[in-house]
Amino acid sequence: MARTAIGEIVDLGIGQAEDALLPRTELAEAARRGLLAGDGSCMQYGPEEGPEGFRESLAAFLRRHQDPGVTAADLVVTAGASHGLDLLLSRLTRPGDTVFVEDPSYFFALDVLEGRGLRLIGVSMDEDGLDVAALERMLEVERPVLLYTVPVFHNPTGVTLRPDRRQRLVELARRYDFLIVADEVYQLLGSTTPPPMRTLDRDRVLSLGSFSKILGPGIRLGWVEAPWQLWTVLRDCPVLRSGGGVSPVGTAVMREVLDSGMQDEVLLRLTALYDHRRAVLTEALETSLPDDVHFRRPDGGYYAWLELPPDVDAEALATIAPASGVAFRPGRVFSIAGRQRNRLRVCFTYYDDDALRRGGDRLGALLTEHLRGRREAQP
Amino acid sequence: MARTAIGEIVDLGIGQAEDALLPRTELAEAARRGLLAGDGSCMQYGPEEGPEGFRESLAAFLRRHQDPGVTAADLVVTAGASHGLDLLLSRLTRPGDTVFVEDPSYFFALDVLEGRGLRLIGVSMDEDGLDVAALERMLEVERPVLLYTVPVFHNPTGVTLRPDRRQRLVELARRYDFLIVADEVYQLLGSTTPPPMRTLDRDRVLSLGSFSKILGPGIRLGWVEAPWQLWTVLRDCPVLRSGGGVSPVGTAVMREVLDSGMQDEVLLRLTALYDHRRAVLTEALETSLPDDVHFRRPDGGYYAWLELPPDVDAEALATIAPASGVAFRPGRVFSIAGRQRNRLRVCFTYYDDDALRRGGDRLGALLTEHLRGRREAQP
Repeated sequence: MARTAIGEIVDLGIGQAEDALLPRTELAEAARRGLLAGDGSCMQYGPEEGPEGFRESLAAFLRRHQDPGVTAADLVVTAGASHGLDLLLSRLTRPGDTVFVEDPSYFFALDVLEGRGLRLIGVSMDEDGLDVAALERMLEVERPVLLYTVPVFHNPTGVTLRPDRRQRLVELARRYDFLIVADEVYQLLGSTTPPPMRTLDRDRVLSLGSFSKILGPGIRLGWVEAPWQLWTVLRDCPVLRSGGGVSPVGTAVMREVLDSGMQDEVLLRLTALYDHRRAVLTEALETSLPDDVHFRRPDGGYYAWLELPPDVDAEALATIAPASGVAFRPGRVFSIAGRQRNRLRVCFTYYDDDALRRGGDRLGALLTEHLRGRREAQP
Repeated sequence: MARTAIGEIVDLGIGQAEDALLPRTELAEAARRGLLAGDGSCMQYGPEEGPEGFRESLAAFLRRHQDPGVTAADLVVTAGASHGLDLLLSRLTRPGDTVFVEDPSYFFALDVLEGRGLRLIGVSMDEDGLDVAALERMLEVERPVLLYTVPVFHNPTGVTLRPDRRQRLVELARRYDFLIVADEVYQLLGSTTPPPMRTLDRDRVLSLGSFSKILGPGIRLGWVEAPWQLWTVLRDCPVLRSGGGVSPVGTAVMREVLDSGMQDEVLLRLTALYDHRRAVLTEALETSLPDDVHFRRPDGGYYAWLELPPDVDAEALATIAPASGVAFRPGRVFSIAGRQRNRLRVCFTYYDDDALRRGGDRLGALLTEHLRGRREAQP
């Protein structure tokens, strides 16, 4: 367990699951069984899109848990969501193309987009997700090839795009002819989530999925759900053609993980634990945060987002926080435009209850003290 | 075993190992042991360059087998040679840059290069590999960012770059300031090979390696050996940063494969078998090919290359060959300039002795008949 000694820093900036939660021993047994099963084709070059059998098992899992309309024919296997994003950018965009992103957004996704030479334009968000009214105004001026969104338990803000806005977003994508790339890696990590974006329009929306958040990042496998018009375009990638898909051995292992029910069990276990930890950190923060820090109770995922008064610099606070035994991610790293300076992200999946309580209390005390000091310094 | 019924087509165009040679059962056991060993960090995000422990084990393997100068600090883990090539292109080139390639060359590598928007210029080859005199003349006119070469058991020709030419190539790279990207995935598949290209210049040469040819393509792991000046540039890739390296689980499995001696054993077994199969196909072809087809006995790797008289179209022959129970890869797919039309590639690693003999005999008979027909048709 990621226990911390009382004096150690609780780093709420770490955006990952606790090591001990990840089912290594079960995976070891599943790996053996998965490799012994089947016809041995997993040792060879496979189809670019991933082996049919694995994609059938994955589609069945997705139908069970999030979308009854998914079939194997929608899926291309990737090495995780960021590889999926890079793959589809390599096939569907050219350097210089305009892409809309949320501001704030997942910083590595921004790096992937910039790595493909795209011109990024940020769309603002509020507590119900992407501001689609602002988006509509921007579409009068700028025409993106695609919009990248994290519509559920958003990284870094934790918010979920409201159902009516989802519908509006899809209508705008149709009217202004752009694709929606929905990074839905947190879709299964909460109890009350809207159906995935593709249920609204299977021709306009591509979805990025991954085992990183529901099994373990180290397996490095994910998928793209693609409209049928784009499916062959995505799989027709030189590296996938040369290599014969992402990892036939990895998919043989994961097929066993899916078919044996192991993935279902792990998902149940993780979501129950994250629900609990989310409640623990939420309670600690709601008790200890000063009134002028805005905190919205998250409903799932990994993260919560704190908004400090407009002129407070979260980056400066981040440098002094460790002296108070706590750390976090300042908001600015999530912005393509240097915004989000008075915001910060905390994660509730990495530590056990005691550490989360200590971290929440310390962060509350730090902010209380800092904001009081500021008020007193002002005449 | 990839046995063929007498009447079935022997497809000498298939450029891969026979399924039954790939050690699936051993890998299943190694996967279990590898995942149970260590500290469990393989389930998490790992370092971009791959876990230190795996890179140490890989470096030790490479020191044992091909280059006593390799250290873990040279290595970046990839998802195979083509991913390695794409990774380094993404970090070291920009669309429009000039790159030199061999003509003929590995067709999927050409696709990867073109996928990055590079301007490709072909350099001719002969029986001793890349024609460095021709290269030198071209360098007076064109300045490439890099040269992509398969310097050992070349795909498709099977030739190995002669030691004096290797030296000359490295001197040219220094004088004209370009990088050499050596695709050395066949380095270990032959008895008498020159040392890898990096032994001549560790600052100028990057080497692509892979487990695909020495263990099995399905494991989808490889490596780049990079000069220290470029090592941090390569690992600083958005997708690797987001995902935490190529596959921590895969590298945990392969570390066990390397440390247990399994990889050494599999390599011994494969090279002995390929030596034998190479001899079988060589004998069949030398016995049955007509005099006006040029065939050079290969020394290792996967392939042999046949040169037909200049005006014979191998692509047309490829369409009629299956009626004679044999198939091959016509040369033109390996050329960026539509050359190599009178050449063809055969592979000797996929079939057992009987099938190879049948395939060789059938190809010899087909070419004998076709070339005699041509001569008789000419006045």
